[in-house]
Amino acid sequence: MKVLKGKHSGFCFGVKRAINMAFEIAAERRNGVVTLGPIIHNPQMTEKLRAAGIPHIEDISGLDDLNGVSTVIIRTHGIPQKDMETLNERGIEIIDATCPFVKKAQDYARLLNENGYMVVILGDREHPEVKGILSFAGEDATVVKDPSEYPNISGRIGIIVQTTKHMDDLKALLPVAIEGAKELRVFNTICNSTDMKLKETEDLASKVDIMLVVGGRNSANTTRIANLSRSLSVPTHHIETASEIKDEWFNGFNTVGVTAGASTPDWIIDDVTNRIKDIGG
Amino acid sequence: MKVLKGKHSGFCFGVKRAINMAFEIAAERRNGVVTLGPIIHNPQMTEKLRAAGIPHIEDISGLDDLNGVSTVIIRTHGIPQKDMETLNERGIEIIDATCPFVKKAQDYARLLNENGYMVVILGDREHPEVKGILSFAGEDATVVKDPSEYPNISGRIGIIVQTTKHMDDLKALLPVAIEGAKELRVFNTICNSTDMKLKETEDLASKVDIMLVVGGRNSANTTRIANLSRSLSVPTHHIETASEIKDEWFNGFNTVGVTAGASTPDWIIDDVTNRIKDIGG
Repeated sequence: MKVLKGKHSGFCFGVKRAINMAFEIAAERRNGVVTLGPIIHNPQMTEKLRAAGIPHIEDISGLDDLNGVSTVIIRTHGIPQKDMETLNERGIEIIDATCPFVKKAQDYARLLNENGYMVVILGDREHPEVKGILSFAGEDATVVKDPSEYPNISGRIGIIVQTTKHMDDLKALLPVAIEGAKELRVFNTICNSTDMKLKETEDLASKVDIMLVVGGRNSANTTRIANLSRSLSVPTHHIETASEIKDEWFNGFNTVGVTAGASTPDWIIDDVTNRIKDIGG
Repeated sequence: MKVLKGKHSGFCFGVKRAINMAFEIAAERRNGVVTLGPIIHNPQMTEKLRAAGIPHIEDISGLDDLNGVSTVIIRTHGIPQKDMETLNERGIEIIDATCPFVKKAQDYARLLNENGYMVVILGDREHPEVKGILSFAGEDATVVKDPSEYPNISGRIGIIVQTTKHMDDLKALLPVAIEGAKELRVFNTICNSTDMKLKETEDLASKVDIMLVVGGRNSANTTRIANLSRSLSVPTHHIETASEIKDEWFNGFNTVGVTAGASTPDWIIDDVTNRIKDIGG
């Protein structure tokens, strides 16, 4: 079986940085270190980090159940302002692995709010990244997942985008947002890495018989890649590890595309490509 | 013949204001007063003002040919910064009838330029209003008439719109403008009056058999109204005065829509409606 692997598949800059920070702390063999939420949306990596001595707590309330937590690692998504304040008030050491691009989106949200703009965040209101950004955007800020949710507002409007959104989503929002606006100030905070992964997926899908998208089922960006691939009418499987692969998927096919979300470790992608190479065309 | 007249047809706020300012000066019977360009894009009104003692010069170079010009009236479109400077240097009194909404667009262009944005003006680069705004927008500013002309630029981009543009034109530009932008700051400087006239034209066109659009042939906004009406498949005539009306246009028709650009005086619109009422259905 011929395998085409996406060059941009796997860890992005922010995830690499956060993982490195966490394992550096783990190497020091300190006690009382946790991550706030899983370090990335990948169960295998979360388990690896736990085995190295750094478990995760689900949210800030989990601190109450854990005695002796002295250090909290903030993952790439960032956290809401008030959670940061709580950690500070409790005298807990913070290792801030918030992705620098997410940090920028938080800064722009703050800037817009401080300058009197009504802030609209294009993204998923349940996503931790968006919850974090929202906390900087002021009390009148809103989150919309697409133009249909856009609020009836006018005046000076500021727009921020969840870093893993697709450019097309932002393009679709702007004509709606300008309707009532006297001024519209848009910070394009879409991460280049997401954009490249999605473009690469389109390119791969046109060249292969079947696509395997590797990554956590709870990873929004892996799921988005899988959905994009499906929308291009290529048989697509979203898998977490090589063990899920079934030989019959490949019957009559010659070329497999392999790509992965920003939270998928290289070793898991390698397992997948090695497993496929063994399968006959 | 039944006549439906657009409520928003004729002079807008800025034009009324400029005409009033000019005739107030005329009433003082001062010598040496000219307007820089015709006061509005309507030959009948320009002639009336000339008869009242205030002719127009075509551009700033016309000052050289006129001895004894002591006062210059700036029309609604505004003028480029350097022309304003020339007038000041020559010690000429300036009566500034620039439309306050155009003035705002100039101010926003200056603000964007001073704050390091690359400015793009959506409009007609030959229009005096746009030439004026452009002079405040910095050396790297560009004018585009539609998305197809949008330049290959990135970074921090500011957008200003010619006040008489249609909202749909702006909506079509934004998805293109966001492509390369890290930040996109849009001032919606489209004049409400233009927007209402165009919406009203659509409404009228759906109710009548034939449309008469009254206004100077050199009036961009009258021409836009006429083109919109034609695009809605209603027989449409763009006329400057009632004298151009031909009875045979109305054969077999019962209802006439009458509307007019922002630079069309009421007396000319009244002439037209009176003339049509005389025509049999």
